Amino acid sequence: MIHTLEWTEQGVRFLDQTKLPTEETYVTCNTHEQVADVIRNMVVRGAPAIGVAAAMGIALGVKNSTAESPGDLKRELDQICDVIGKTRPTAVNLFWAIRRMQEKFERIRIRPVTQIKQGLIEEAQRMHAEDIAANQAMGRHGATLMPADGGVLTHCNAGALATAGYGTALGVIRAAVEEGKKIHVYADETRPFLQGSRLTAWELMKDGIPTTVISDNMAGAMMRQGKIKAIVVGADRIAANGDVANKIGTYTVAVLAKEHGIPFYVAAPISTVDLACLDGSQIPIEQRNAQEVSHIAGKQMVPDGVAVENPAFDVTPAQYIAAIITENGIARSPFDISLRKLTAQEVEVHP
Amino acid sequence: MIHTLEWTEQGVRFLDQTKLPTEETYVTCNTHEQVADVIRNMVVRGAPAIGVAAAMGIALGVKNSTAESPGDLKRELDQICDVIGKTRPTAVNLFWAIRRMQEKFERIRIRPVTQIKQGLIEEAQRMHAEDIAANQAMGRHGATLMPADGGVLTHCNAGALATAGYGTALGVIRAAVEEGKKIHVYADETRPFLQGSRLTAWELMKDGIPTTVISDNMAGAMMRQGKIKAIVVGADRIAANGDVANKIGTYTVAVLAKEHGIPFYVAAPISTVDLACLDGSQIPIEQRNAQEVSHIAGKQMVPDGVAVENPAFDVTPAQYIAAIITENGIARSPFDISLRKLTAQEVEVHP
Repeated sequence: MIHTLEWTEQGVRFLDQTKLPTEETYVTCNTHEQVADVIRNMVVRGAPAIGVAAAMGIALGVKNSTAESPGDLKRELDQICDVIGKTRPTAVNLFWAIRRMQEKFERIRIRPVTQIKQGLIEEAQRMHAEDIAANQAMGRHGATLMPADGGVLTHCNAGALATAGYGTALGVIRAAVEEGKKIHVYADETRPFLQGSRLTAWELMKDGIPTTVISDNMAGAMMRQGKIKAIVVGADRIAANGDVANKIGTYTVAVLAKEHGIPFYVAAPISTVDLACLDGSQIPIEQRNAQEVSHIAGKQMVPDGVAVENPAFDVTPAQYIAAIITENGIARSPFDISLRKLTAQEVEVHP
Repeated sequence: MIHTLEWTEQGVRFLDQTKLPTEETYVTCNTHEQVADVIRNMVVRGAPAIGVAAAMGIALGVKNSTAESPGDLKRELDQICDVIGKTRPTAVNLFWAIRRMQEKFERIRIRPVTQIKQGLIEEAQRMHAEDIAANQAMGRHGATLMPADGGVLTHCNAGALATAGYGTALGVIRAAVEEGKKIHVYADETRPFLQGSRLTAWELMKDGIPTTVISDNMAGAMMRQGKIKAIVVGADRIAANGDVANKIGTYTVAVLAKEHGIPFYVAAPISTVDLACLDGSQIPIEQRNAQEVSHIAGKQMVPDGVAVENPAFDVTPAQYIAAIITENGIARSPFDISLRKLTAQEVEVHP
């Protein structure tokens, strides 16, 4: 069992993903500012995990508050949400989590401050549990799309480490393997942050699922050689029309999939769907520090004076996507209709 | 001026490409075994440079020989060629260079041993000079295909560092810039060996040609954003039908180019064309050490117990290629006819 993040008596505990695969160490945050830092520095990453981390960070900030009235607590909550909201712009789950915590506050603001605090802490923990349950449901739906045997390619890490547990894309693979399907995973290493080689390979190895790591630029050759029967990736934000923002390089994989007639699947919880974004052009793309590309393991790989680009995500247009797997079922083209239908099925959990 | 490799009185001197871009150091080889090692370890790499290095290694081995008769020298030459020929399997220039040195021997074997030795040394030096001249001719032909301004993507390093000087793909870019075209180069970093970030960026920076390094998996997003107007890469072997073996990831770039309607060009000397290979399926693909993928700058990035693939090259089928630029002119589809025609134009240099 992988404990990506947990609410503990001592604070919010994170498995430090920057240290994997060679060191399994944990970081405990005692303030919401510390949680904002671990999100920004990618100690925790992956859209669903960022959502749960944001909720727990907010709960932590509220717990630490000395406010004595709901009104004072609300002002602090807004400041806390502002700090958490400025960490990473692309994953919509971050803003979904903030909104859900704010809505929770509104529903219980008539109660005493100690009860409001407790209610928000419980809401964050509920979001953690719900995320795992959503991934397991996604796995059941998505497993039916996986081949009975053969290679399945994934990009980045959309696994237990990108969620509260089990994973979205890797949850689909896990569920397929649990059903007896003989899947061999090809994991793109996923430059520049190497989530594929460091994280996906690590968690699949822990589960005994056969995995081969390849450089991102080997995916085309593997497809041409017939080694890949399906592709499944996660998502950081899904627009109303089915365009998907995901880790940089996902679009390249989707184009290769089309060229080779290989189905390209996206697995993500309903919280990743942003109906307010009409299409992918409206999704903000985070630009990260150039040093992630120019330096590896502290070693300079690009000469001084040469420019570097480092967009963390790209957008895969809906027409490249065979299906989007959610906890509420599988959406297919036309996605504007199917996604809206699945989103409406979302069960609101009230206190 | 970049001195990739040179024949000197002290031996064959190589710019150590494994140390770039942060250290500019040189390695001098005194034996053909040492030359075989620097080819194998990629101190020198790039198909045309490997060809010239092989010729110089053979000349060095012959120079060191104590054989007193042409017959004894021939037996040693065969052994030397055998050592050099076992370094890297994909670049056909290696075998072309061996054949050319053997043919030179045959033409002058009636002479005294000292003259044969001198003739082979001169042949290797001539191949060095011819390679630079071929690249400059390639540049003149290819520059006409480059856009007047805008982004040109290249993969791996097909530059001065991959040749005796000037470069094949980068020679085309250099010639276009010399003609006044305003080109901004996008250099794929080219995992696992990072020839793009370490070598292409370094030599273009030295020439003041604007360059942006991107991770390989960003190329698709850059094309979709309209930043790339043309693509030009080198080749390690070109089959008779126009299929091209080049650095792993080239095929992915070619598929992306097709999807975006961007012309994809290959620049390579005639010595890279292997008419004995009918198509790409007959080109042997070198598998290199898994550690090139699993470890970067000495740091382990893939957990123990997980498999890694590391094919050094892939094959881009001819139908993805807009044109092949050689020193004898530009070949277009149908390549089986155009390549044969350009190959027949090759001017044999006799002693």
